[in-house]
Amino acid sequence: MRSGGGFNRIDILSGGAHDNRVGEIFDLARRYGIPVKLKDRAALDKAAEGNHQGCIGYATDFEYSSLDDIFAHCNNLNEPPFVVVLDGIEDPHNLGSILRTCECAGVHGVVIGKNRQVPVNDTVVKVAEGATEYVKVVRVVNINDAVRKLKEQNVWVYALDMDGKDIYKENLSGAVALVVGAEGKGVSKLTRELCDGVLSLPMRGHIQSLNASVAAAVGIYAKLQCDSEK
Amino acid sequence: MRSGGGFNRIDILSGGAHDNRVGEIFDLARRYGIPVKLKDRAALDKAAEGNHQGCIGYATDFEYSSLDDIFAHCNNLNEPPFVVVLDGIEDPHNLGSILRTCECAGVHGVVIGKNRQVPVNDTVVKVAEGATEYVKVVRVVNINDAVRKLKEQNVWVYALDMDGKDIYKENLSGAVALVVGAEGKGVSKLTRELCDGVLSLPMRGHIQSLNASVAAAVGIYAKLQCDSEK
Repeated sequence: MRSGGGFNRIDILSGGAHDNRVGEIFDLARRYGIPVKLKDRAALDKAAEGNHQGCIGYATDFEYSSLDDIFAHCNNLNEPPFVVVLDGIEDPHNLGSILRTCECAGVHGVVIGKNRQVPVNDTVVKVAEGATEYVKVVRVVNINDAVRKLKEQNVWVYALDMDGKDIYKENLSGAVALVVGAEGKGVSKLTRELCDGVLSLPMRGHIQSLNASVAAAVGIYAKLQCDSEK
Repeated sequence: MRSGGGFNRIDILSGGAHDNRVGEIFDLARRYGIPVKLKDRAALDKAAEGNHQGCIGYATDFEYSSLDDIFAHCNNLNEPPFVVVLDGIEDPHNLGSILRTCECAGVHGVVIGKNRQVPVNDTVVKVAEGATEYVKVVRVVNINDAVRKLKEQNVWVYALDMDGKDIYKENLSGAVALVVGAEGKGVSKLTRELCDGVLSLPMRGHIQSLNASVAAAVGIYAKLQCDSEK
């Protein structure tokens, strides 16, 4: 759970005296949007087929890819890689929405972290409206290592964040990765420094903050537009 | 809050470690004479029906604008109108997200229908993250009448829908309205025929369908880009 969930559902013993770990599991399940059901002891005994500690998690079976899979995929298509890196997206609706957009826009792969990041669970699959069947998702321990590996493959890595260059002034054709930061936090400092550049969307209003999945979509389509102008 | 309140009451988590923004909200509430109550986590969780950040504001009823308000607003700013027309958005999360994007992008007004369309309710206000305090929303009985009125004011009205012209091939500078269709249905036939043109976002994947709020955002920013290139 601490590594970001990876469960479709959690069943917890109803009316039982739980220890603190069950409370922690409950909190993490809420954070990652994993449904929790209260079950009686008979139901848990039957599902566990043996000993349990008042709590059963049903693991997701989404198959993750590797960065090398993405590079091989681009090689096959003879296209320069277009990768989206997510730095700490916790809301399953945002992750699902971003995966849907990535699939529609022909993004070759999406990188997510194992920590403080929602995994591809049932909520994500549902919100993504079928995109998880197509788009390659890579789950890495360290986002910064992934950024370094992308740079080694001559992919130009941009952070999509505040106080950067106007995205519409940059030529985004060719091999590009866009790093999208967490809701309300943006791209983490070290990751931002590792990137080849920081790009920002024009902001003309008062609230100055787009939803993470909306910002990702606008950034992704800015890249598509550069490709179509080539 | 910064725009002058618009809340009946603010509930703040008691005994919690708040970040600075909650302190700022507390100060603004005092300034505008809005009652603040301290509540325990269970009460906040129940009231929020989901995630919250230790602070809940109860908004006053939303005040709609008229199309003439929008035109007068643009006149004051000496800017050509940029209007978003929503044709049957039913999901409050989509409406909230679109209003947030419109506010960030400097859209002058949003037109929604009275029928088969979610109004600006509490969920919309919450998802919009403050945008409903700024962006003008016009609620009309007949979307097509609104489209005709926009055309009379020399606003170029585009439907954002399937099977149209590539949006990136069109010059969107000047007075423009974008009509965004309902989730899964697109722009209704008659409205589409009334429009001056139909624009589509490039689709490169298999599922060929973006979320309505994502499509709206990408369309809105395509217009912003044309303005910045002028």
